[in-house]
Amino acid sequence: MSDLGRLRVDGERLAERLVDLARIGDTGDGGAARLALTDEDGMGRDLVVGWMEDLGLEVSVDRLGNVVGVRPGREPGPPVMTGSHIDTVASGGRYDGNLGVLAGLEVLRTLDDASVTTRRPMAVAFFTDEEGSRFPPDMLGSLAYVGGIGLEEALDVADTDGKRVGQELQRIGYAGVAPVPGPAPHAFVELHIEQGPVLESTGVTIGAVTGVQGISWQRVTITGQANHAGTTPMHLRHDAGWAAASVAARLREVVAAVGDGQVATVGSLRLDPGLVNVVARRAELTIDLRNPDEERLQAAERHLANLLASVAGAEGVEVQSERLARFAPVRFDERVVGLVERTAAALGIPVQRMVSGAGHDAQMLARVCPAGMVFVPSQAGISHNPAEHTDPEDLVAGADVLLQTLLTLATEDVV
Amino acid sequence: MSDLGRLRVDGERLAERLVDLARIGDTGDGGAARLALTDEDGMGRDLVVGWMEDLGLEVSVDRLGNVVGVRPGREPGPPVMTGSHIDTVASGGRYDGNLGVLAGLEVLRTLDDASVTTRRPMAVAFFTDEEGSRFPPDMLGSLAYVGGIGLEEALDVADTDGKRVGQELQRIGYAGVAPVPGPAPHAFVELHIEQGPVLESTGVTIGAVTGVQGISWQRVTITGQANHAGTTPMHLRHDAGWAAASVAARLREVVAAVGDGQVATVGSLRLDPGLVNVVARRAELTIDLRNPDEERLQAAERHLANLLASVAGAEGVEVQSERLARFAPVRFDERVVGLVERTAAALGIPVQRMVSGAGHDAQMLARVCPAGMVFVPSQAGISHNPAEHTDPEDLVAGADVLLQTLLTLATEDVV
Repeated sequence: MSDLGRLRVDGERLAERLVDLARIGDTGDGGAARLALTDEDGMGRDLVVGWMEDLGLEVSVDRLGNVVGVRPGREPGPPVMTGSHIDTVASGGRYDGNLGVLAGLEVLRTLDDASVTTRRPMAVAFFTDEEGSRFPPDMLGSLAYVGGIGLEEALDVADTDGKRVGQELQRIGYAGVAPVPGPAPHAFVELHIEQGPVLESTGVTIGAVTGVQGISWQRVTITGQANHAGTTPMHLRHDAGWAAASVAARLREVVAAVGDGQVATVGSLRLDPGLVNVVARRAELTIDLRNPDEERLQAAERHLANLLASVAGAEGVEVQSERLARFAPVRFDERVVGLVERTAAALGIPVQRMVSGAGHDAQMLARVCPAGMVFVPSQAGISHNPAEHTDPEDLVAGADVLLQTLLTLATEDVV
Repeated sequence: MSDLGRLRVDGERLAERLVDLARIGDTGDGGAARLALTDEDGMGRDLVVGWMEDLGLEVSVDRLGNVVGVRPGREPGPPVMTGSHIDTVASGGRYDGNLGVLAGLEVLRTLDDASVTTRRPMAVAFFTDEEGSRFPPDMLGSLAYVGGIGLEEALDVADTDGKRVGQELQRIGYAGVAPVPGPAPHAFVELHIEQGPVLESTGVTIGAVTGVQGISWQRVTITGQANHAGTTPMHLRHDAGWAAASVAARLREVVAAVGDGQVATVGSLRLDPGLVNVVARRAELTIDLRNPDEERLQAAERHLANLLASVAGAEGVEVQSERLARFAPVRFDERVVGLVERTAAALGIPVQRMVSGAGHDAQMLARVCPAGMVFVPSQAGISHNPAEHTDPEDLVAGADVLLQTLLTLATEDVV
């Protein structure tokens, strides 16, 4: 093992900074609330940018508020980049996103302490509005960074109060001047909590993420006929509520038909007028289908369409479906995935390949450079919740795998 | 047929007054909105009280805002009473409740025009908050009138803004001085639209209502575990949303098990946090069970309890059920039911016996005096809706049956 191979992050420094950042928007129950482009997000950004400047990084803010801090290398050229996001959901935890950004900074601090200058430049980035809770869609900043959405369109996205991304960026002082789309890195590796129960259930510390599931979101609107719940015989009803409930309950038939790897969720279901004694006139539900395989995801969409048609026919209601989001599955670069896997193994840390169930900035960067991810376990699979937790030794293990993976990418010709 | 037997109401006068009353709270689409004890309800009350005074009735307002107008008879004693309510749901029609009150006044006007003085006094009443949309439970005014709920408890009922019945009665000037409970009438007959499709489907004009279905309302709260919709395998979920949808969809198994006459409805279903990509932590749904037979209604409740337990066990969620309302089936006085039936037949109007699917003030009055109801058809069974409609000739038929039924009760010793 080379001298560089013996470098390790300082776990306590990393833990302290996770706590420091979580103080901004502290929800008092272990969580943090820094919705994108709120005052709290602005304060969190200022704190992290300060830490970037402490490290002597060359910090640039682009027109969509994506922030990149670059550490020079011995040779010019695009940097080996890591990073994630520091915005949270309304009731978020301390690790989602934050870990990837702060571990990236801890990696650079470790190199500084060891007076290491890498061959290629290195960079830590945080992208705007990854969560999409306030400004849909999620991963907005990284999507724009890679040219997946036009800058003007992204700046024009409004929240439910009608405030726009561009206006809010100005307000918190993060409407920068760097161009969007941004320059492609040499490679991109993101450390993130798993947000699911797989690593915990297998007792493995590191996930070498091979890709991200495809996502298909629909909003289904069912129109029936409002009727009196006491006076309308069952056979004369056109009950939008019963139809919606039947779709939601029978969605597991879609899962069973498609088989392994398919998940399906109805997270939102509303009835109108929503009164105890009125047969619902209208129902609205969302359907979230995910599969790591595009063909299987399409099969799930077909099964769902059949289910909708079948329920509509049985109850005499009208069903309309609107696409809310559709991302094809992403496969990360095999060279990066293999490097993450070998790096963890060399460090003696248990590792397994796995697919990400959630979307991440790395899947956007994968469009413009070799990319991959490092996962660490989420206790009980919980995230987007103040109870989100990863054991301190797992945080350190993930940061060490990130450190050594980035070092290899920055010094060797793996990609 | 006696001279009295030849009396008929003036259908045009009745129709005009239905239109006049519907102008207050006009929703612009054929409907009216006069939620109980709002300004609009107050204006509607003022209009109808004015009409009562025009008829020379002795108008009393009780401490819960129930209004009774009495027309003296030749003999003292309790009046033969008719009436209903003039409050509406948020998006109500022109006939529900209003018809019973205004047809009652038209009956008295018809007697005035013919200079008829009946042996017994006659009265027209409208009861406070029959709909229960703003202040639950429904039929609050008539329930208190017959002593089914204490006055103080009724005055203390609050709406979702925290405003109380007592305070709102004061505000609109209908906190009267007549005692609650009120005096029992000699008999009570209520004319009402069916609010269901039965008469229309059989082509019969008049329903002689034999009783009211029993009602069992529950609010079911299901507690599961919030999880990420992308990362949580199906077998590790405790999905409150799936459990709620399964209960709502499978409620028809309860209907099938109990058989004829049973209806069941989930009119309200909400998921928390209600996000497309989050497995629901919590679900709340209402269940409305009705049956004309008490034993069958209890059987339905048992089947529902089994269904809830079965779904809870299958998904690993917690289910709690809270009783929102429970009324045993009501049987109207056979002498009154028979009189309505014979009266319609004598007038040459097609009539059939039927059970009411909805609750009505008459079922409360049935606790203290012989009571019954006259139903007229609802087009397409629609009510609680601006599209609520009854053909003019059916309105007149119903009012004539009411007139002759009341006349018989006020002059003969049927009950």
